[in-house]
Amino acid sequence: MNYEEVMKLALERGFYFPSCEIYSDAQAGFWEYGPSGVSMKTKFIELWRRELVRRDAMLEIDGSQIMSKSVFEASGHLASFADPIIKCKVCGLNFRADKLIFDITKTEIPESADLADFDRAVSEKNIRCPKCKGEFEKARKFNMMFKVEIGPEAEAAYLRPETCQSIFVDFPRLFKTMRGKLPLGIAQIGKSFRNEISPRQSLLRLREFYQAEIEVFCNPNKLDKLERFSEIENTTIRVWIDDELKAMSCKQAVDSGVLPNKFVAYYLGLLTEFYEKTGIDMTKSRFRKLGEKEKAFYATVAFDFEVQTTIGWLELVACNYRSDYDLTSHANKSREKFEVLDDEQKVLPHVFEISMGIDRSLYTILEHSLRDEKENERIVLSIKPYLAPVHVGVLSLVKKDGLKEKTDEIYMKIKRRYDAFLDHSGAIGRRYRRLDEIGAPFAITIDHQTLQDDTVTLRKRDSMQQDRIKIQDLDTVLLKETAFP
Amino acid sequence: MNYEEVMKLALERGFYFPSCEIYSDAQAGFWEYGPSGVSMKTKFIELWRRELVRRDAMLEIDGSQIMSKSVFEASGHLASFADPIIKCKVCGLNFRADKLIFDITKTEIPESADLADFDRAVSEKNIRCPKCKGEFEKARKFNMMFKVEIGPEAEAAYLRPETCQSIFVDFPRLFKTMRGKLPLGIAQIGKSFRNEISPRQSLLRLREFYQAEIEVFCNPNKLDKLERFSEIENTTIRVWIDDELKAMSCKQAVDSGVLPNKFVAYYLGLLTEFYEKTGIDMTKSRFRKLGEKEKAFYATVAFDFEVQTTIGWLELVACNYRSDYDLTSHANKSREKFEVLDDEQKVLPHVFEISMGIDRSLYTILEHSLRDEKENERIVLSIKPYLAPVHVGVLSLVKKDGLKEKTDEIYMKIKRRYDAFLDHSGAIGRRYRRLDEIGAPFAITIDHQTLQDDTVTLRKRDSMQQDRIKIQDLDTVLLKETAFP
Ligand SMILES: [Zn+2]
Ligand SMILES: [Zn+2]
Repeated sequence: MNYEEVMKLALERGFYFPSCEIYSDAQAGFWEYGPSGVSMKTKFIELWRRELVRRDAMLEIDGSQIMSKSVFEASGHLASFADPIIKCKVCGLNFRADKLIFDITKTEIPESADLADFDRAVSEKNIRCPKCKGEFEKARKFNMMFKVEIGPEAEAAYLRPETCQSIFVDFPRLFKTMRGKLPLGIAQIGKSFRNEISPRQSLLRLREFYQAEIEVFCNPNKLDKLERFSEIENTTIRVWIDDELKAMSCKQAVDSGVLPNKFVAYYLGLLTEFYEKTGIDMTKSRFRKLGEKEKAFYATVAFDFEVQTTIGWLELVACNYRSDYDLTSHANKSREKFEVLDDEQKVLPHVFEISMGIDRSLYTILEHSLRDEKENERIVLSIKPYLAPVHVGVLSLVKKDGLKEKTDEIYMKIKRRYDAFLDHSGAIGRRYRRLDEIGAPFAITIDHQTLQDDTVTLRKRDSMQQDRIKIQDLDTVLLKETAFP
Repeated sequence: MNYEEVMKLALERGFYFPSCEIYSDAQAGFWEYGPSGVSMKTKFIELWRRELVRRDAMLEIDGSQIMSKSVFEASGHLASFADPIIKCKVCGLNFRADKLIFDITKTEIPESADLADFDRAVSEKNIRCPKCKGEFEKARKFNMMFKVEIGPEAEAAYLRPETCQSIFVDFPRLFKTMRGKLPLGIAQIGKSFRNEISPRQSLLRLREFYQAEIEVFCNPNKLDKLERFSEIENTTIRVWIDDELKAMSCKQAVDSGVLPNKFVAYYLGLLTEFYEKTGIDMTKSRFRKLGEKEKAFYATVAFDFEVQTTIGWLELVACNYRSDYDLTSHANKSREKFEVLDDEQKVLPHVFEISMGIDRSLYTILEHSLRDEKENERIVLSIKPYLAPVHVGVLSLVKKDGLKEKTDEIYMKIKRRYDAFLDHSGAIGRRYRRLDEIGAPFAITIDHQTLQDDTVTLRKRDSMQQDRIKIQDLDTVLLKETAFP
């Protein structure tokens, strides 16, 4: 199913929709999760915790989104987290300089080029405003952080453009109070904010978005000494390198030099096992090794986890070996000590980052799970039961003859433990199809036989098979079938 | 235990600590949750979902934190969500006018008074700057919303000062697409932001804080027709009204007129059952009915859920019957339709709000659960097992003789399902005491006997009792003992 079909489902079935949509000054790039989206996101996060945070005994924090100016002076965001823009002298519209020049002339100027390069291109190619044909002002840098003013004195602070800065800044306290040992993963789920010039495609380019970031602090001299590498050495990973896909075990990837060391291979392996469990079609995925020009300047090695969708390859995770760039910057600016002891040696840790976009991941799961089953006249969201917004629909065949009351009674018993949806009204077939669309793996129907023998019909979403089971066995079945793997 | 002792625990054991603390421009009122705090908060939210959202079949959403200007024009925040402040002409410091005047003269001027009233008090009582004795400028209004500028055109938007505005603005779509029926609860967990003039006391007055808000949309003509009232009619609630505490069942509270109707009583009953399960000492709690002058102007009835702590009564939840104030305001400003059908009658729903402060609730749970057991030479956080940051410590008695490997093996088996903490180093008594401080209800210790008969020692936090149990029974015990009620 394509982007538009997923969007239709999202809007009509409570997955996501535009923020402040009743107002004409609603800004682009801000979206809300509806009830189906919240439920799925909560479960996705729980899976992430199980497969990455708890599995690897990481520390999870939840830091403030507004952070002080010094943080972003040290990180470099204040100086260089900016896009080149040009403004029309006539209508006042702003455009990203590199994108507009490329769209019109097919000439690529890197976004990090000197502003004069953009001005020269605009003047040489006589580029005018696409809207009004007006001339452009000189290019300028537009910083993508949102500034906020604190207190009556209006001291400058910023909404964080990435969650990882909290992790770096908190590292000294966390390592000390939590009795840290290298390698130590510190993880965070939270909102980040970027003042994008052209947000677009709903969850795919947002101004306010969810990240799940992990920073693994390690001893740079021990990248091939990782005991737990054995846990994933046979896991197959798909690496795109030198324009070629190589599918091989983590062990082979290290031995053949496709991946630089066991440390990187271990985390790409964990991430592979995590995404397999989300139900994304992994045959459409790859870790693409970034070239020298593509990488962030602080990254010595970088892999993007990308997945193929109907609108192209989507980057879901950025994996960067950031070396000691961040800790050195914050140590220099703050005068705080960031060295720690490892085997009685003082070490300034290096950082390997696994920066996941939650919103994009959820979109991809939806697109890969949604099917139009024309033969059954239904749209079905074939999502993993443990990620499904609703675990089970609870339906009365008809409302009368005491069936409503019996249905309510069963619903009451299971609703705190499972995401259950009670539905009394409408033709039973339509109710099933609605449950299929939101991916409910099970529906139980209470009919006249229920009153006689305490059995219900259990319908399975994917096979549409219906079996009678005893009410007393319901909990066992649901617990087993909706449990996390 | 008092505020300082809780703070000491929080800082040393990873519950919470100041944001950006390595930098001198760190702003007051911003705090981070460390690993213990995140784990406890996650579980608190799950309990809230079970006891309120799922129990009552509410819809949960997750809206954008940055919202457009129109929202706050309609809600009244732009015009009136402001505190009176006065600024020293000499040193430039700002103070909240009403608070400073009260501190110095014990004269109460309501914060909503005319600015001239503050100027008059300052001049009559000759109030000077507490810091430098300088004179004050004229009082002015300081709006407590944080403004952000969107896109290169810098259009004004705001960080929401309360999560409920998303719920009101999203109501038309949600009611329609989710096939809503009155009464309908819509819930949201998320950050809100207030530019407080004097943030203080760590989690108790923050500039960036977590709310769990529920807005119940109802038919104002049916406040005494609530079938499910029977579920809580015998629940005892504690209401503080006319300077007196009345503890009675929800039914009695309605019958005697202490509470205005079944509708309000039902939700105060649910909330009571929720907080009982958090482990807060409910004998120190009350729903205090607010007087006419204390209530927000839109509230026709208001109760604060307050709990006694060592620093006084803390308001954890505000319960407001907001009538149709919000929907009318947004309907007028947006021209969107907010009426819905109820029993084939068009109704503009009224709103009953249950606005919970998560940070304050967590603080109160910590204070009420922390004990100094001098007789056992330990500090113990006697928190409910299902809210504990760590469910179980997994300890090797010594590292040698294969005990480390056996311990690792047991830890590996349970770590994805439970919050487990592996600890090999230090005297066993000290390791137990550290687990007591973070409230781990269980510790299992692997010793030489384990290698012979596959049993481990299971130590219980509160009784300090130790029993030998079989490894194969561990999962059953942990599952039962750490399950949500
Ligand atoms: Zn133009
Ligand atoms: Zn002064």
